[in-house]
Amino acid sequence: MNKVTNFDEYEVGYDIPAKPGMDVADVQTPCLILDLDALERNIKKMGDYAKVHGMRHRVHGKMHKSVDVAKLQERLGGSVGVCCQKVSEAEVFARGGIKDVMVSNQVTDLAKIDRLARMPKFGARVLCCVDDPANVPNLSAAAVKHGTQIECLVEIDCGAGRCGVTTTQDVVNIAKLIDAAPGLKFAGIQAYQGAMQHMDSYADREGKTAIAIAQVQEAITGLKAQGLECDIVGGGGTGSYYFESNSNVFNELQCGSYAFMDADYGRILGKDGKRIDQGEWENALFILTTVMSHSKADKAIVDAGLKAQSVDSGLPTVFGRDDVKYVKCSDEHGVVSDPDGVLKVNDKLRLVPGHCDPTCNVHDWYVGVRGGKVEVVWPVSARGKAY
Amino acid sequence: MNKVTNFDEYEVGYDIPAKPGMDVADVQTPCLILDLDALERNIKKMGDYAKVHGMRHRVHGKMHKSVDVAKLQERLGGSVGVCCQKVSEAEVFARGGIKDVMVSNQVTDLAKIDRLARMPKFGARVLCCVDDPANVPNLSAAAVKHGTQIECLVEIDCGAGRCGVTTTQDVVNIAKLIDAAPGLKFAGIQAYQGAMQHMDSYADREGKTAIAIAQVQEAITGLKAQGLECDIVGGGGTGSYYFESNSNVFNELQCGSYAFMDADYGRILGKDGKRIDQGEWENALFILTTVMSHSKADKAIVDAGLKAQSVDSGLPTVFGRDDVKYVKCSDEHGVVSDPDGVLKVNDKLRLVPGHCDPTCNVHDWYVGVRGGKVEVVWPVSARGKAY
Repeated sequence: MNKVTNFDEYEVGYDIPAKPGMDVADVQTPCLILDLDALERNIKKMGDYAKVHGMRHRVHGKMHKSVDVAKLQERLGGSVGVCCQKVSEAEVFARGGIKDVMVSNQVTDLAKIDRLARMPKFGARVLCCVDDPANVPNLSAAAVKHGTQIECLVEIDCGAGRCGVTTTQDVVNIAKLIDAAPGLKFAGIQAYQGAMQHMDSYADREGKTAIAIAQVQEAITGLKAQGLECDIVGGGGTGSYYFESNSNVFNELQCGSYAFMDADYGRILGKDGKRIDQGEWENALFILTTVMSHSKADKAIVDAGLKAQSVDSGLPTVFGRDDVKYVKCSDEHGVVSDPDGVLKVNDKLRLVPGHCDPTCNVHDWYVGVRGGKVEVVWPVSARGKAY
Repeated sequence: MNKVTNFDEYEVGYDIPAKPGMDVADVQTPCLILDLDALERNIKKMGDYAKVHGMRHRVHGKMHKSVDVAKLQERLGGSVGVCCQKVSEAEVFARGGIKDVMVSNQVTDLAKIDRLARMPKFGARVLCCVDDPANVPNLSAAAVKHGTQIECLVEIDCGAGRCGVTTTQDVVNIAKLIDAAPGLKFAGIQAYQGAMQHMDSYADREGKTAIAIAQVQEAITGLKAQGLECDIVGGGGTGSYYFESNSNVFNELQCGSYAFMDADYGRILGKDGKRIDQGEWENALFILTTVMSHSKADKAIVDAGLKAQSVDSGLPTVFGRDDVKYVKCSDEHGVVSDPDGVLKVNDKLRLVPGHCDPTCNVHDWYVGVRGGKVEVVWPVSARGKAY
């Protein structure tokens, strides 16, 4: 699936929302639109930032799930590879030609471990995270079986409360097991504080990141005492990358949402007290939607509901419009309040999704636009690759 | 896409979570599981109910988006066809061999109207809804252009507050326009009260449906006065079908969720005061998930997060377990509280999703199981078909 060989095979509307060359006005909705100019500026800006700060940038592929976007991030942003969260996602990136792929998550199921151990045969460096000593012999056995190498990071839970160990003793114990295991290589530390990224206040995020940095610093010291060096100390997202970059502890960033932006991330405040979607990053991702009914004077019904987005982090906003507001979302419909009755049936709106990651995962295609024309149509290559 | 021709082409884990014949224990997670025994009992029960009550049942295909499930509903439940919400969904059902397909929604975009008008060429009766007089000439022109017929229902907004007209005068006006338009046939009334279906109290739902029934009755009387008969008076969902069935006004039901059930629908109370998932309907749909980390004593991290479900109507419940609880959902992870530490890494759980429709829309496959074995793997045929 998602093997794009010949656009002529696809019927617009049935298989695909648009074809290259089409006017944006003719695109079938609801679908995801990428403003290519904005996307390229975001990617270049983060790439330049990382370079100036001596950081590698391993972009988070779980956000966009797109080989095409990942390659743009390599080309324009100098990214060193991708991280992603599932083995099936990693397979898509490795098969698609990304040469350095980290599953920034645990891989514990034996069948998944076997697939992970086969992945270096696609030509990629392959990494995963470990938070359980019992996981190490299984990873090792699979790598030995396939004659490959899996690089392993110990994951530290630095505040998100999900996977990861919390003490330096546990970090060191697991690192030693990895270091001693055939087929495995100890690669460093994974320490992504996911729970703090969306806190509104810059100072609050700084405080949480400071705790994480101290925790990671202690682990590095503990590892060094055992002769174990960290090639990678990875973490940092769109809400915190400036803290990790200036920590002298982390050396790899893992930002995802900066490239597309969404309404929930956009609301958080930067150091300057301004929303980060007002200057720091541009909205590059939109849900294009059409008014399909306006039988009540003060509200328009649009064609983007729960099948076109995830509302876990709130409703979408209507881009560039103060006069209308997306106020309710059901399976197939969105209700847009239109107090002045300015919208008409078949008018199109650009919505900024509440949360980009799970919204992208609902769609099969990105429609990349520039100057009112569809320039590219990219598959959401790893869509649905959750296993 | 989703053209299943030969399962040998698919690699388990990368392309597909399971293959027929596999033990359920080996299925790759997270994925959707259908308990085929429970599914068949639900389908048969609703089919028998409709038959006894002299109602046609046009099953709601937007819930499952599966040609295979729709055909099972025809075979075991005597359904007369499907309704669905988007033209691209309708195309999937018509191309898949369903002979009577209603878009229970407005179709206003000219390219979509053109596709709709071509659909009868796939061999299906094709219907759609209208709530705007200006829509009628566009539908008519496309049907004439393609030499086909589109049957049109006037949609009444009977309380949901989305599409649909609210007065008998508007119903009659639009019906007359449809009746006079070449290529179109006036087919009746669409009156689905979607907003009331999930109200907990049986009496509350009864009260709201009574309002809708009176509104529809008045419209039918108004149409009759103009010599217009309704072949179809359609509506009724899993939370209300007994009211419409006994109304002497409706003649078609449009139930969807009864077949799969979900946690949000399951909570509503039947006439007997019992939750409808405790006797009236069985849970047939589950998200199979695996514990991937248990680094904290009192919580397990599972592999089903926001990419494996929609949480718009609440978190999933853990099926058949009182000792553990799904308490938090992030992009790739679920946090399951495990106060007694009974779960181990690689244990599997069955989750009942909060809301079946948008959860099914995230997945590419249904894994149908019986007696511990995978019996069928069905594509979610219309997944992502939102345009």
